[in-house]
Amino acid sequence: MGQNYKRIAEIALKRREAAIPDEYLLPKAALTNLPQNLTTIPRTSGHFTTAELEIIESNAEDILLKIKERKWTSLEVTKAFCKAAIVAQQLTNCLTEILFPEALSRAKFLDEHLERTGRVIGALHGLPISLKDCMITPPHPSSIGMACYANEPTKPNEETVLVGILAKLGAVFYVKTTTPTAMMMMETISNVWGETNGAYHSGTSSGGSTGGEGVLLAMRGSPLGVGTDIGGSIRIPSAFNGLYGLKPTFGRFPVYGTKSGISGQDFIYSNNGPMARSLEILKLYCRAVISTEASPWTLDPKCYPVPWRGDVIEPKGQKLRFGMVFDNDGDISVHPPILRGLEMTKKALEAAGHEVFDWEPLHHQEMANDMNSSFYTLGGAAILELTLKHDEPVFESMKEYEATYKKGEHGTLGPTKLREMITKRNAFQKIYLDRWSATAKNGKGPMDGIITPVSPWTAPRLGITQKLFSVNYTGVWNLLDYPVCTFPVTFADKNLDKVRSTFKPLNEKDAGIQADYDPEFYDGTPVVLQCVGRRLEDEKVLEMTGVIAGALNALS
Amino acid sequence: MGQNYKRIAEIALKRREAAIPDEYLLPKAALTNLPQNLTTIPRTSGHFTTAELEIIESNAEDILLKIKERKWTSLEVTKAFCKAAIVAQQLTNCLTEILFPEALSRAKFLDEHLERTGRVIGALHGLPISLKDCMITPPHPSSIGMACYANEPTKPNEETVLVGILAKLGAVFYVKTTTPTAMMMMETISNVWGETNGAYHSGTSSGGSTGGEGVLLAMRGSPLGVGTDIGGSIRIPSAFNGLYGLKPTFGRFPVYGTKSGISGQDFIYSNNGPMARSLEILKLYCRAVISTEASPWTLDPKCYPVPWRGDVIEPKGQKLRFGMVFDNDGDISVHPPILRGLEMTKKALEAAGHEVFDWEPLHHQEMANDMNSSFYTLGGAAILELTLKHDEPVFESMKEYEATYKKGEHGTLGPTKLREMITKRNAFQKIYLDRWSATAKNGKGPMDGIITPVSPWTAPRLGITQKLFSVNYTGVWNLLDYPVCTFPVTFADKNLDKVRSTFKPLNEKDAGIQADYDPEFYDGTPVVLQCVGRRLEDEKVLEMTGVIAGALNALS
Repeated sequence: MGQNYKRIAEIALKRREAAIPDEYLLPKAALTNLPQNLTTIPRTSGHFTTAELEIIESNAEDILLKIKERKWTSLEVTKAFCKAAIVAQQLTNCLTEILFPEALSRAKFLDEHLERTGRVIGALHGLPISLKDCMITPPHPSSIGMACYANEPTKPNEETVLVGILAKLGAVFYVKTTTPTAMMMMETISNVWGETNGAYHSGTSSGGSTGGEGVLLAMRGSPLGVGTDIGGSIRIPSAFNGLYGLKPTFGRFPVYGTKSGISGQDFIYSNNGPMARSLEILKLYCRAVISTEASPWTLDPKCYPVPWRGDVIEPKGQKLRFGMVFDNDGDISVHPPILRGLEMTKKALEAAGHEVFDWEPLHHQEMANDMNSSFYTLGGAAILELTLKHDEPVFESMKEYEATYKKGEHGTLGPTKLREMITKRNAFQKIYLDRWSATAKNGKGPMDGIITPVSPWTAPRLGITQKLFSVNYTGVWNLLDYPVCTFPVTFADKNLDKVRSTFKPLNEKDAGIQADYDPEFYDGTPVVLQCVGRRLEDEKVLEMTGVIAGALNALS
Repeated sequence: MGQNYKRIAEIALKRREAAIPDEYLLPKAALTNLPQNLTTIPRTSGHFTTAELEIIESNAEDILLKIKERKWTSLEVTKAFCKAAIVAQQLTNCLTEILFPEALSRAKFLDEHLERTGRVIGALHGLPISLKDCMITPPHPSSIGMACYANEPTKPNEETVLVGILAKLGAVFYVKTTTPTAMMMMETISNVWGETNGAYHSGTSSGGSTGGEGVLLAMRGSPLGVGTDIGGSIRIPSAFNGLYGLKPTFGRFPVYGTKSGISGQDFIYSNNGPMARSLEILKLYCRAVISTEASPWTLDPKCYPVPWRGDVIEPKGQKLRFGMVFDNDGDISVHPPILRGLEMTKKALEAAGHEVFDWEPLHHQEMANDMNSSFYTLGGAAILELTLKHDEPVFESMKEYEATYKKGEHGTLGPTKLREMITKRNAFQKIYLDRWSATAKNGKGPMDGIITPVSPWTAPRLGITQKLFSVNYTGVWNLLDYPVCTFPVTFADKNLDKVRSTFKPLNEKDAGIQADYDPEFYDGTPVVLQCVGRRLEDEKVLEMTGVIAGALNALS
């Protein structure tokens, strides 16, 4: 038995505390009588200068431009985000490792380089980028919410391939962000770092597993974050924090060297992608990383040697065809604000001349079940053997991992079962592809994208997903390996989003989730949906998301 | 227990016999006193008309042109190849299903279409294409050398995606060809169809698992064949029969609906690709199948939506850099004719101004071992549960499948072992990518390709690979998922290729394989090598193969 997890957590928390510069902290007095919506605090607290506020409230693409044009230095930008990140940390508990000294010296170096040469070193020159804790930045630990890793330094040769690429493009790394245990929950809680709460309502979850990133971005503590997604881990926190977040197709972005909750699991691919408050920076990030200049395919054996393409929707401005999953996915019904978000989006798109029709979520429940059960089967030993070493208790929504682990190494998987799992998954992929292709009719091309909820909740109250776990809306697209981007629509409104008057639950969990809806409690939480594209049409997904955002904007 | 395999084989053989038109058969008298080299027989037998000989000795790309220009009809071309295929069958036992009636009616339809409209229906209009038996052409059985499938009709909805695409492009299907049991041996022998011998020396193997195709092409019984490759199954028979054969990167060609020896196995991807006597038709085939017109990515969920690119070597005529694996791969040494082939190729490339340097086959042995052992682990039950049903005896080179099967469903694979296998495979892929990238130095770009033997043998004597099984030279590229094309260099020559005077075997198997070399016996067998490219650089591999073939041609 190793060191007890409580002692490990103490050490980790002390390290984090010691890394926080006092001058960045909100005074204690400012931490009482907090509003429910924490995102207003940076502006209302008086803690930030006007110049700092201007920086942290800017979109990342504008910051990059201002640095390039030498209106702002990377150093002042980085300092502002360091400060805002600490405030976010105080209010939401979203950080793990704090890398300020190296970030500031890196920013200085980049400023000097630009000053001296007149040139930026890459497309992300000087931009602070926050990283999910699974991105390895040696020598800092990469805990992914697990005691076994929480205080272990990482070695230079372990650096995540993507981290090296972002550095070459000019990024400044200044914080790493919290995840749940092994990154396998839909809220961000662990035995090491505790719980990360939401930004728009402190009593709700930041989502998981990229919850620290999600809330940090919503709190203006970062202009651009990088998350990972194996069942919804980019999209769920993007939804709960009102963000754009891209889960790409596997193979577009380098994944090598990312710390994994279930290493070696490839039944469902894990991906990484950007999250931000603006869509434009997502596009800029993709163009920069998937470029001939960065050539990720020379660094990651799973990467396709296909640079990011621009303007794939041709002719430009072409009217699009969307399928939409309404109300429920055959298993779980959404809360009323999400339903209103779907209706708003449909109306906005139709007003802009696009076509929106119902899309039946055929086989979604089976696919989500297969995905979840593959994680239990393949992840039981992977996770429990590590958590048991340090006596970590198992969170309720992860009990199935424990149950599977207890069946023993040969109790759950043999070669025949594995081959059956794969054959079934591949058949689902084929069926979905054929269904999509079959939408071409009456002289029209196939549907361009699918719009669906990200989650039944806007942002669930803390703890409830331990009992009512559901990542089905996001997970099906991981099993299918389709690219998806989230987009904010509106916020829950107690005056508009009443409890459903007639509701016939599809099952017990559906009843439980719907019973949780409370217009008062959820008032003001973000309504975010996702736009799904065909496999490897990642570029089109971002462009379609832009079309949707534009239509929503025109209507409002 | 099902029907005994002997009874099943009898039925299959009778069906095949009944499908052979008498007029295509070589007279019995012509089957005595056969020369060792069977490829001369079509020309020397007097069995073919001058017109027929002209057709069957033409390259596929020329045939397509002549059909398009209406100098030949598809019907006369198809008839000539039907006849030549029957002669090949008589001499080598290379066919399974014979589809002549539908082939002739299809050819007529295509001729009439061209006559009527003046247009071909696609890039493969009227060309007879032979198919490995795993390509499903309903209602014909797809036996893949197994009694359980040998007489089972296939259903319309089971048609292999690639078959449908080739049909749309204008192909005429007229024969399917033999494979070993479950396509998992390096010679083509099964309890259903018996053994398929080689073309250039009737006492040698046709190779496996696409052995029927290989020998059919060498015998001029087909202008273009389609095989599959999971450990060398396209390249080994291409080598033993003096052919060009492309094993592409996974995802370039549609694979859905191909009958698999170990269905649901995806630790090592199975691919399909073209085999022929000319390189030009391989390029034409790739351009046709991976085209916007055929859009395989709308039919197969694993296919990349990237059309085949032409002229990827820029600037054209640029001098290339090749690594070459000489003499042995760290485990098995090649026979003397192969060594001479390597030297010839090096000399030819250098004479043409290209660079050739030694390439150390680092980790090749470990990668090949991991590949083989994954097949045993994942394939034991998959294969044995089917063969046992019909009392099929197990071939010696497949005994490991039986041994693994006997360990039981949970004796060989649990989730932890699976994850370890995958992690190790991915690490090998990363190491190889880094090594490749590191060849860029002194202002030169990275190496363009690797040239290696395909097999230690030119074409091994029948039966010997049951004891001395080795697919390591080909298998590493399956584990790495790199595209590879074979190319013929020369033929073994007893006067030039003497027994090695000093030989220090690397191990017992190496000693055994080298001891098998006999200049007299192997005289006249084909010397074929393979050119390896980086993952997804399939286009470049075919272009590099053209450069190599051109250099060899210039030297001879």
